[in-house]
Amino acid sequence: MDAQVEAGITTDPSRMRALEEKLRDLEKRLAQVEGQVAEDRVSMVVFSGDLDRVLAAFVIATGAAAMGQQVSMFFTFWGLSAIKKDTHISGKSLFQKMMALMSPGSSESLPVSKMNYFGVGAKMLRSMMKDRNVSSLEELMALARELGVKMIACEMSRDVMGIQESELIPGLEFGGVASFLADSLKSRTSLFI
Amino acid sequence: MDAQVEAGITTDPSRMRALEEKLRDLEKRLAQVEGQVAEDRVSMVVFSGDLDRVLAAFVIATGAAAMGQQVSMFFTFWGLSAIKKDTHISGKSLFQKMMALMSPGSSESLPVSKMNYFGVGAKMLRSMMKDRNVSSLEELMALARELGVKMIACEMSRDVMGIQESELIPGLEFGGVASFLADSLKSRTSLFI
Amino acid sequence: MDAQVEAGITTDPSRMRALEEKLRDLEKRLAQVEGQVAEDRVSMVVFSGDLDRVLAAFVIATGAAAMGQQVSMFFTFWGLSAIKKDTHISGKSLFQKMMALMSPGSSESLPVSKMNYFGVGAKMLRSMMKDRNVSSLEELMALARELGVKMIACEMSRDVMGIQESELIPGLEFGGVASFLADSLKSRTSLFI
Repeated sequence: MDAQVEAGITTDPSRMRALEEKLRDLEKRLAQVEGQVAEDRVSMVVFSGDLDRVLAAFVIATGAAAMGQQVSMFFTFWGLSAIKKDTHISGKSLFQKMMALMSPGSSESLPVSKMNYFGVGAKMLRSMMKDRNVSSLEELMALARELGVKMIACEMSRDVMGIQESELIPGLEFGGVASFLADSLKSRTSLFI
Repeated sequence: MDAQVEAGITTDPSRMRALEEKLRDLEKRLAQVEGQVAEDRVSMVVFSGDLDRVLAAFVIATGAAAMGQQVSMFFTFWGLSAIKKDTHISGKSLFQKMMALMSPGSSESLPVSKMNYFGVGAKMLRSMMKDRNVSSLEELMALARELGVKMIACEMSRDVMGIQESELIPGLEFGGVASFLADSLKSRTSLFI
Repeated sequence: MDAQVEAGITTDPSRMRALEEKLRDLEKRLAQVEGQVAEDRVSMVVFSGDLDRVLAAFVIATGAAAMGQQVSMFFTFWGLSAIKKDTHISGKSLFQKMMALMSPGSSESLPVSKMNYFGVGAKMLRSMMKDRNVSSLEELMALARELGVKMIACEMSRDVMGIQESELIPGLEFGGVASFLADSLKSRTSLFI
């Protein structure tokens, strides 16, 4: 009996210490994995300024936000047209002026990527959506805002194209590719649209 | 000796309880991480109806399925043309008719995104693929089906464009953006094509 | 007292064994999750051969590499134009020759996706970028190389288009969709551009 007790006492503490050590190791590894796993987050680059593609972006963005995801939309290049509210010509270089004049002045004048025919296609698509009670782009944009979707305007393309902050809708954040990547690297889903 | 036994008995149970508690905590955290980690799954939005892009979508989809991934393809907007089998005009509004008449009637008449020249480009690409023994789009679509790739037709764009179920190839699922997101949020890779 | 010792000795070992077993089980589950979690990695398909989109691809690629990510760019279809250095006509089929003659001969002659006007748009964009001290595409490509970005040329589209290795810039890897997927499935962010 005494020998048994002895055994219990001498083996258990070392097994226990081994267990505790293993547990600490597991905890460290688990903490690392927890830091690597994606958050409830969806990110997208909105590169296109076509009505159909921008619509797809906002349908996905509002859908994801409604499903509890943190959503970031990074508007760059032609995509900046979707978040413009009007066009100022002063303060722009010649090329910037030319580009501004040939680009849509706001979301309401975005063309469709196919069959646009100088805007007829875009009007047709909007009318078809209204017929089926589908939210318009502007309604989806308002919904996105309500749902807390983060909208970031790309500083670099804004600078290259000479688009001033005052030409853009309010409530935007401004950032570079690092802002997009910071969100995207933690996202379950990232899309380039 | 008795004191040692005493010590062993009085300290061990609390250390053991502490260990058990920590273990339960780790298990809970691990279970959460297990629920957050991506499945062996690939999802894509097929937004484009261009032959070259739809080909890319099916090459990636069949490749991923062959590598043991669950694959979902969500066909929306112009991408619906890739899963049409024919076009019915009756039962469509004027705009829906116009869009139907200007859209490809099936995968076989998809244009290429560049250098299409009224279908010459698409024929040229198909011929070039055949020359190099690359599977045609229709062969890739059949393979996708065999490999269990899930193909979902977007209900909203189907409704807006007035495309009836009978105009689409058989074996599709129907769903909205939530169907796409449900798969995409669990996917290792999601693409917008 | 003796009974207490007895109890301590008889219950502890089984609780300890239970703990050890649970720990082994947790470790196995954790190892599996560790294998499933995304690496510090970003992958992209560069399908487009448009200057604006290829620029976006390289801005994201170099940005991600600078943030410590392993980056893979898989150039396919029109995207191959971005990694061409010149065009050889001999050894190509008629269609391959036609496609080669109508495609850009190198990154320097890539068109923009909109408002290209036979290259004027691309020149304008390059000039606007220079005005704002934004790196040119060629500078970004050199930076990508320095940062260890992996550039893979798609074998299948190279074969279909009849593009020879000698027409491409040096330092590329060659591979199929499986190469892309192998990287993409382990990536935090995957994009189709």
